Amino acid sequence: MTIDRPVLLITNDDGITAPGIRALIEAVKDLGKIVVVAPDSPQSGMGHAVTIGEPLRLYQVQIFDGIEAWESSGTPVDCVKLARDIILNYKPTLCLSGINHGANHSINVIYSGTMSAAMEAAIEGVPSVGFSLLDYRYDADFTIAKDVVRTIAQKMLAQKMPDHTLLNVNIPIATKETFKGIKLCRQANAKWQEEFDKRVDPRGKDYYWMTGKFLNMDEGTGTDVEALAEKYASVVPVKFDLTDYTMKDKLQNDWGDIITK
Amino acid sequence: MTIDRPVLLITNDDGITAPGIRALIEAVKDLGKIVVVAPDSPQSGMGHAVTIGEPLRLYQVQIFDGIEAWESSGTPVDCVKLARDIILNYKPTLCLSGINHGANHSINVIYSGTMSAAMEAAIEGVPSVGFSLLDYRYDADFTIAKDVVRTIAQKMLAQKMPDHTLLNVNIPIATKETFKGIKLCRQANAKWQEEFDKRVDPRGKDYYWMTGKFLNMDEGTGTDVEALAEKYASVVPVKFDLTDYTMKDKLQNDWGDIITK
Repeated sequence: MTIDRPVLLITNDDGITAPGIRALIEAVKDLGKIVVVAPDSPQSGMGHAVTIGEPLRLYQVQIFDGIEAWESSGTPVDCVKLARDIILNYKPTLCLSGINHGANHSINVIYSGTMSAAMEAAIEGVPSVGFSLLDYRYDADFTIAKDVVRTIAQKMLAQKMPDHTLLNVNIPIATKETFKGIKLCRQANAKWQEEFDKRVDPRGKDYYWMTGKFLNMDEGTGTDVEALAEKYASVVPVKFDLTDYTMKDKLQNDWGDIITK
Repeated sequence: MTIDRPVLLITNDDGITAPGIRALIEAVKDLGKIVVVAPDSPQSGMGHAVTIGEPLRLYQVQIFDGIEAWESSGTPVDCVKLARDIILNYKPTLCLSGINHGANHSINVIYSGTMSAAMEAAIEGVPSVGFSLLDYRYDADFTIAKDVVRTIAQKMLAQKMPDHTLLNVNIPIATKETFKGIKLCRQANAKWQEEFDKRVDPRGKDYYWMTGKFLNMDEGTGTDVEALAEKYASVVPVKFDLTDYTMKDKLQNDWGDIITK
């Protein structure tokens, strides 16, 4: 089929009722036809989970004025798969995921449902972006984030992007006065260091809540964590060939006796 | 603390009662102290999911003769985090995940709970391997797989591996006669193409089962998919800096007007 207007597939991992997805829709709704397919409940921390052991539900809902929207019982990745195979039956022009309530910079990209949804679309050949605001609060201010979303979406629509383009965009807590701009970055070597808060249930059995603190082990420059601390929005282009070619060469050399050439 | 013997942390995503984890333990149990921490139920397709919205359970169980074992309500990644923070309180020498019932080659690395558990340990600085056998059956024959596990584990114990070493090892269905050896590979550009099987429940509502077929879009050589088809076990070294540096340079050039230097 031919598509007259750009089609923007929108999803998230905080669920279809989160303020962040509403902010994302508002930021781009005049740039093309919008189709929303999002989880019916929060899915934070789902990583690249897919639902294979149980069936999926998918219902059309009316919650965004004049916008086609669907909710699913599945994960963010399931939503993208359902959008492609059941709802659209063609490739959208872009896939935008978010705006996540909370950071997905540094190594958090691999835990993030927001980024996994975008990655799923990028694998399918749809240029995609995951957007995250460094503010976990339900009533977070998305003003700056919406400007960043719109700027990047317009840029991606104005030029032909490579099919597998995938960007991880994080936006600092900032005002129009303190916000510095958009910066291309590399993924920082930084992560959450978990701790577990042990408790005892009313029947005397132990259980644990995951907590933790953020550790930046990166001593270099040019990282997303550094840019965000300076009040820039960070843009990290992401790839999904995870092969470590340097290590491959090293093992070819070191493990000659067990490796078949 | 000082550790006299190597400590091998063992986990999986098929659950602690799966034959694959029992085969893995049998393959390496004389190589060091074994500590098993695995999900109490199957977690296939969980990707790098973590449990942040609900509490985790963790119980010691006696199901492997003479081996310390724990089961958790969490995901494979949760199990590795719990092992480190609650059970061990020190870094194990290696983390071995699997043996998965089914393939985790090519781009499936990002959907795989088996590989995510190994990646979690590698991020923490523990050299790690995920093992998968290309046989989904409960009664799969793990003979060749166990030989491969043991060979690689011995090699990793015999030399000091870089802390963040992470290997994705897949093993073909083969006999001693047809098995060709172990080959270092790159991740193939190949993936499952999902389809959804639509059904109607007894109350007249639609639901979907995810199905699909495997597509190899990779026209090059040296891939894991190619090696497996030739009856080699494939070893792909994996990294978790997902930054696409080539795309970063391209965007720095193309998007000058919205990017702050």
